Amino acid sequence: MEELDVAGLLDLTGIFVFAVSGALAAVRQRLDVVGMVVLAEITALGGGILRDLIIGAVPPAAFTSLGYVLTPLVASVLVFHWHPQVARLLPGVLLFDAAGLGLFCATGTIKAMDHGLSPLHAALLGVITGIGGGILRDVLSGQIPAVLYDRQLYALPAMLGAAVVAAARSLGLHGALVTAGAAVLVFGLRVLAVRYGWRTPRPRGVTD
Amino acid sequence: MEELDVAGLLDLTGIFVFAVSGALAAVRQRLDVVGMVVLAEITALGGGILRDLIIGAVPPAAFTSLGYVLTPLVASVLVFHWHPQVARLLPGVLLFDAAGLGLFCATGTIKAMDHGLSPLHAALLGVITGIGGGILRDVLSGQIPAVLYDRQLYALPAMLGAAVVAAARSLGLHGALVTAGAAVLVFGLRVLAVRYGWRTPRPRGVTD
Amino acid sequence: MEELDVAGLLDLTGIFVFAVSGALAAVRQRLDVVGMVVLAEITALGGGILRDLIIGAVPPAAFTSLGYVLTPLVASVLVFHWHPQVARLLPGVLLFDAAGLGLFCATGTIKAMDHGLSPLHAALLGVITGIGGGILRDVLSGQIPAVLYDRQLYALPAMLGAAVVAAARSLGLHGALVTAGAAVLVFGLRVLAVRYGWRTPRPRGVTD
Repeated sequence: MEELDVAGLLDLTGIFVFAVSGALAAVRQRLDVVGMVVLAEITALGGGILRDLIIGAVPPAAFTSLGYVLTPLVASVLVFHWHPQVARLLPGVLLFDAAGLGLFCATGTIKAMDHGLSPLHAALLGVITGIGGGILRDVLSGQIPAVLYDRQLYALPAMLGAAVVAAARSLGLHGALVTAGAAVLVFGLRVLAVRYGWRTPRPRGVTD
Repeated sequence: MEELDVAGLLDLTGIFVFAVSGALAAVRQRLDVVGMVVLAEITALGGGILRDLIIGAVPPAAFTSLGYVLTPLVASVLVFHWHPQVARLLPGVLLFDAAGLGLFCATGTIKAMDHGLSPLHAALLGVITGIGGGILRDVLSGQIPAVLYDRQLYALPAMLGAAVVAAARSLGLHGALVTAGAAVLVFGLRVLAVRYGWRTPRPRGVTD
Repeated sequence: MEELDVAGLLDLTGIFVFAVSGALAAVRQRLDVVGMVVLAEITALGGGILRDLIIGAVPPAAFTSLGYVLTPLVASVLVFHWHPQVARLLPGVLLFDAAGLGLFCATGTIKAMDHGLSPLHAALLGVITGIGGGILRDVLSGQIPAVLYDRQLYALPAMLGAAVVAAARSLGLHGALVTAGAAVLVFGLRVLAVRYGWRTPRPRGVTD
C-alpha cells in the first residue's frame, strides 16, 4: 500500500487532470478506447518520465507507483462514457490543468535540486516536467505542440513558477509553503492570461 | 562472436520484420536510401531502447549487439531493391509483424521483471517494447501512430500477452514455454482480428 | 566558472548554429518568443541529451553546463530581432550548420567510445548526436524530418565522419587533429553536395 499524504494526493490530482486532457484529445482524433488510454497515460506521465530519465532516477516513478498508472485509466473511463459533459466542463478542466501545471513545475524543480542540479537547470527540468506530457500528447495527435504557440501563456507561467521554487530553495527556503506558493503563482498567471487574452510577443513581422 | 540460441534468433526475427515495416513506410514517403535505413533501424530498435532506458539498462542492448544494428540494414537492402515484391507479400509481412509483436511483448515483460519491476509495471513496459518502435516510425513519417486507432486490434493483444507473461512469472512459471505461449496468443488474436475485422469500442458518438 | 578551451568553444559554436536553425524554424511556424526559445534549445541540445541518456551519462551535459543552456537563448534573441537579416545570411548559416554537424558527430563518437561502446555503435551514436536535435526540431514543427529525405546529403556525411573518428580511435589515433579532420570531412562533403546537388539514391520507382 502506497502512503497517501497531501503531496501524494496533489500529485495524483495533477496526473488526473492531465490524463483528462489527453483523453479529450483522443475524442477529437476519433480514436478507439485503446488510443484514448495510451494518450491519457502519456499526457499524464510523460513529463515526469522525461524528468526521471534525465536525473537518472530509474525506473521512473511512473513505473514503481500503482496510483500513477491507474489514475489515467480512471480518467479514460470517465471521458469515454461522459466526454460531452466533460467537454462542457472545459473551463473547469482548464482550471484543473493550470493547477496541475503549477504543481508539476514546483515538484519537478524540487526533485531535480534534490538530485544535485543547479537552480537554473532544476528550474529548466521543472518546466519540462510540467509541459513534457502535453508536448508528447500533441505530437502523437499529429499537431504542433500547443505550448509552442503559448497563446494565453502556458510555458511562461511555468518558467516563472519553477524559477521561484529554485530561487527559494537556493536561499534555504523549502517545504509545502513554497511549493504551494509557486503553484498558486502559476495557476493565477495562467487564469489571468486566459481571462484577459495576454500573450507573449512574436518576432517582428510575424502575425496570425 | 555473439551467441545465437533460439531466443536470440527469434529476437532477430522480430527485429527483421519490424525493420521491413519501417523500410516500407520509407517507400510510401518517397524517402531516399538514408531515410529508409533510419526508419528501419528506429522501427526495429526503438521499443527496446525505450525499455532499456526506463529500467536503467544502459547502454541499451541495441548499442552493444552487432546483430541488432546489422539486421535492419539487411532488411533495408531487401526492401530497397524489391519493395514491390515485398509489398505484394504484405499479408505475409503482417503475419511476421504479429509474431514480432508477440515476442517483443513477452521478452520485454520478462526483462522488466528481471530488473525488479512489479508485474503490472513490467507488463506495461512489455507493451511499450512491442509498440514503441512502430509509434516512432509513424511520428517520424508525419502520421498519427496507427496503434492509437487500434483498427484490427494491435495494442490490445499486446496488452493481453504481456499480462499473461507477467501473471505466469509472478506465479513462479517462466521459461521458453511461457514466452512462446504468450507470443502465440498475441499472434493468434491479431490474426483473428485482421481476419474478422474485430476492433475496440470507440467513445459515444465517435464514428469514422 | 566553466573552463573554456578550444574544444569548449567549438562545442558552443555548434550549439549556437543549431539553435539558430531551431529559432528560424519557429519564425516559419509563426511561433511566439516562448516557442522560439523552446525550439532553439531542443534543436541545439537534443542530440547530445539523447547521446548522454543512451550511454548513461546522467544528468546530461546540457543539465550541468551553464553555457549550453544560455547559448540558445542568445541565438533566440538575435533571431527574434533580426530574423530577416539572419535568413538572408542563410547560405552562411548552412555553412555553420555543416560545421556544427561535423563537430557534433566527431565529439559524440569520441564520448561514446570513452564510455566503452564498440567503434560501430559509437559511430552510430555520433550520428545520433549530430542529427538528433534537427529531427526533434522538425517533429515538433509538424514536419517530416528533413534528414530522412537527405536531399543534398546530410546524414551520409555525418555517417562517414563518425566512421572515420571511430576507425582512427580504434587504431589508437585520437586528439584534436582527428576530430578536426573528421569535422572538416563532414563539412566539405556537405558543402560540395549542396553546391553540386548530390543526393542519395531512392528505391526503384520512387520519384519526387
